[in-house]
Amino acid sequence: MKPLYFFLTIVLINFSVNGQTNATEDSLNIRKIYDMSLLNGKSYAWLDHLSNEIGGRLSGSYGAEQAVAYTKAELEKLGLDKVWLQPVMVPKWTRGEREFAYVQTGPGATRNVNITALGGSIATPEGGTKAQVIEVQGIEQLKEYGRENIEGKIVFYNRPMRADHIQTFEAYGGCVDQRYSGAEEAAKYGAAGVIVRSMNLRLDDFPHTGSMSYGDTPVEKRIPAAAISTNDAEYLSSMLKIQKDLQFYFKMNCEQHKDVQSYNVIGEITGSEYPNEIMVVGGHLDSWDLGDGSHDDGAGVVQSMEVLRLFKETGYTPKRTIRVVLFMNEENGLRGGNKYAEVAKSKSENHVFALESDSGGFTPRGFGITATDAQFNKILSWKHLFKPYLIHYFEKGGGGADINPLKGGDLVLAGLRPDSQRYFDYHHAANDTFDKVNKRELELGAATMASLMYLVDKYGLSGINKETVEMPD
Amino acid sequence: MKPLYFFLTIVLINFSVNGQTNATEDSLNIRKIYDMSLLNGKSYAWLDHLSNEIGGRLSGSYGAEQAVAYTKAELEKLGLDKVWLQPVMVPKWTRGEREFAYVQTGPGATRNVNITALGGSIATPEGGTKAQVIEVQGIEQLKEYGRENIEGKIVFYNRPMRADHIQTFEAYGGCVDQRYSGAEEAAKYGAAGVIVRSMNLRLDDFPHTGSMSYGDTPVEKRIPAAAISTNDAEYLSSMLKIQKDLQFYFKMNCEQHKDVQSYNVIGEITGSEYPNEIMVVGGHLDSWDLGDGSHDDGAGVVQSMEVLRLFKETGYTPKRTIRVVLFMNEENGLRGGNKYAEVAKSKSENHVFALESDSGGFTPRGFGITATDAQFNKILSWKHLFKPYLIHYFEKGGGGADINPLKGGDLVLAGLRPDSQRYFDYHHAANDTFDKVNKRELELGAATMASLMYLVDKYGLSGINKETVEMPD
Repeated sequence: MKPLYFFLTIVLINFSVNGQTNATEDSLNIRKIYDMSLLNGKSYAWLDHLSNEIGGRLSGSYGAEQAVAYTKAELEKLGLDKVWLQPVMVPKWTRGEREFAYVQTGPGATRNVNITALGGSIATPEGGTKAQVIEVQGIEQLKEYGRENIEGKIVFYNRPMRADHIQTFEAYGGCVDQRYSGAEEAAKYGAAGVIVRSMNLRLDDFPHTGSMSYGDTPVEKRIPAAAISTNDAEYLSSMLKIQKDLQFYFKMNCEQHKDVQSYNVIGEITGSEYPNEIMVVGGHLDSWDLGDGSHDDGAGVVQSMEVLRLFKETGYTPKRTIRVVLFMNEENGLRGGNKYAEVAKSKSENHVFALESDSGGFTPRGFGITATDAQFNKILSWKHLFKPYLIHYFEKGGGGADINPLKGGDLVLAGLRPDSQRYFDYHHAANDTFDKVNKRELELGAATMASLMYLVDKYGLSGINKETVEMPD
Repeated sequence: MKPLYFFLTIVLINFSVNGQTNATEDSLNIRKIYDMSLLNGKSYAWLDHLSNEIGGRLSGSYGAEQAVAYTKAELEKLGLDKVWLQPVMVPKWTRGEREFAYVQTGPGATRNVNITALGGSIATPEGGTKAQVIEVQGIEQLKEYGRENIEGKIVFYNRPMRADHIQTFEAYGGCVDQRYSGAEEAAKYGAAGVIVRSMNLRLDDFPHTGSMSYGDTPVEKRIPAAAISTNDAEYLSSMLKIQKDLQFYFKMNCEQHKDVQSYNVIGEITGSEYPNEIMVVGGHLDSWDLGDGSHDDGAGVVQSMEVLRLFKETGYTPKRTIRVVLFMNEENGLRGGNKYAEVAKSKSENHVFALESDSGGFTPRGFGITATDAQFNKILSWKHLFKPYLIHYFEKGGGGADINPLKGGDLVLAGLRPDSQRYFDYHHAANDTFDKVNKRELELGAATMASLMYLVDKYGLSGINKETVEMPD
């Protein structure tokens, strides 16, 4: 009898301490969600197909088209209330034949280095670009060197990601201006091209691509831009210390085409009580072309699909409308995210919550949340329900590139925060492949997202701006 | 001026809220520890040598000897007050030629399967063991089948690790009796041998070894025991459903030798104020022979060494004696841990704190702690200092196999708790290799350990059993 008595005491304490009569029901429902994801999850099999059968999914590519068709067909199998494609025109940039580059330290003395064109870059001239190199630690150093030292040369941006940032996205944020605006800025000083150290905290041989912009640089003044692997960036830098006038050669064959038709893939479970209150969960369907985009953002796509499947499979009937949105073109245009927000606005849809997973399929740690204090505190009051799953991170600030355009009104934005230590080992590189994703970590992420969606659906976050929400213990 | 004013306000709030005049100093010192580990750490280079130059380090092997010599030499370079070897006799078990096994479903119809001898198993007879297979879901099922169904057959333990445990060590704990005692128990029913499903949450082709015991089974009644990969366990199980009488063949060449001389490697910084209060940090130097033991427990070894190096490099002078102990023979005997405790007792040494890292070199999440309520609450009062490093897990219960024998008196035991999701993908298998360890994750673990050691050294945990320690906010 003792164990039962003990159990009842715990339950009673639970009810009174939390002041929530549904505490036990919530614990049990969340346990059901995690069990279903870990024992009978679908996310890993979906990712296997997306990565290994389809592969890279750059906007406008055949892979992207296939991914639209595949995920739509899979959503249709889930018995949702509605599945549809939302048309959106997307940019189409192609890499062409793979890039080639070498460092020349003297007549006949060359060493090949690993580079990759940055997304959106123009090609080099037919015969490639060959010039002296000037190494800088960032855009701000261009001014210091001035046109006299830069004109006709290749600017080599070599400021590394800082290893002392605990959250690697902060290290990324401190460097990515070199990749995004490096060519635009160097062109102002007459540079012949730009080589950027890959956004990678590790020393390895993979060059990491990513979007770049020429801003309002006139077409004839645009210069080719590539990323170089961290190992080769170290090599180039050390060679430059020995020999300032060494020549760097690179040849790229990329091309910008006309915009093409593509789609956001959308599925929904219509709300049983508040069908007009829409909650979005999503990731982006496009990826870069080098790997198969398993972490970025195949993981987010299949986790988002899994959220709706977990609701169906565990028998939870949401009060609000739950919509999965698989956004197209996050990587080089954000057309899908912008289009979704534009359509939502034009239809006066009431979006109350949006959650994005776009930080890799690693062990989930929690969420970054953009909300009012009252809304945020309400979410914090659920934190104890996540403790058994080692989910502890609930901090202000967060959302996702694709859902941010929805911002406004009472809308709460959230981003899943997985462990970020290994993310930039793979980000936008040829080694972002299926084998780098651990099944359990992916499934824990899906369950964590579903659990938050469940709680937001059940208790709501709207209309509590002026209400006092007490902080949990 | 505003930023300075703001900064001062924060500092003042910090002082008053925490009631700790050293709060800022602690934050800064801990920041120094993390920076040093992430920017100028030594742990990864040490692990590179241990894994790639030395490799597997099973007790009594040449690798184990080399590891003793290497780590002693490296500790001697750190300028510690004392470095020494503590002699300990260890068992020596060798695998011999690699194992071979197949499933025979009919005349000439065989398929090879991946097995590995369990550590401590006897060899099969010269010509191997061939017999029918009986699959069970655990030791308890032997009784149900009885001698009439088991005698002369190979018992196949196939209860898998449960995927719904969030902490994978719990899933391991729920299965490992099959590996450790499976042969002893099956021998009681006259089995010819034992095949155990690998302790692995993933489906793959790697068999995972690990220690087993014959208990008091007489030598002539002992039977050979092997682990089979999870993929092949699934295959074998599905074949048994089709054909109950299929034959399983395996051949193993392992051998138990006489005990040999080995050592624990110890280094210390003698305490400046309380030299007789000893704080231990350690991991185990031995590993299984299949991979290079990078996660188990090369990571714990180099992290423990790094703790002392971080103290030296950041200029922190500990009040208490800080000792790194690299234990020999955790895997198949625990002789090193027992010897260390025995010597400590015989010398009446006062151990006040012991921390072990033996759960892999993954992103640290916190600590499991065995302590009195008062001691535990004191540790909890430091939790906020770990928040910037995403260290949140401070739970009761924990230590480590090597330090547990020290238990007694006021001693607090702690175990580093890294993310456990991928641990059993590699544990005791040929794929536990250097490339599976992420540099940053390893370094974050070392810094997290050093930070806790710093706080325990500075504030102490002894003599507070009856003191009231208030819970932090």
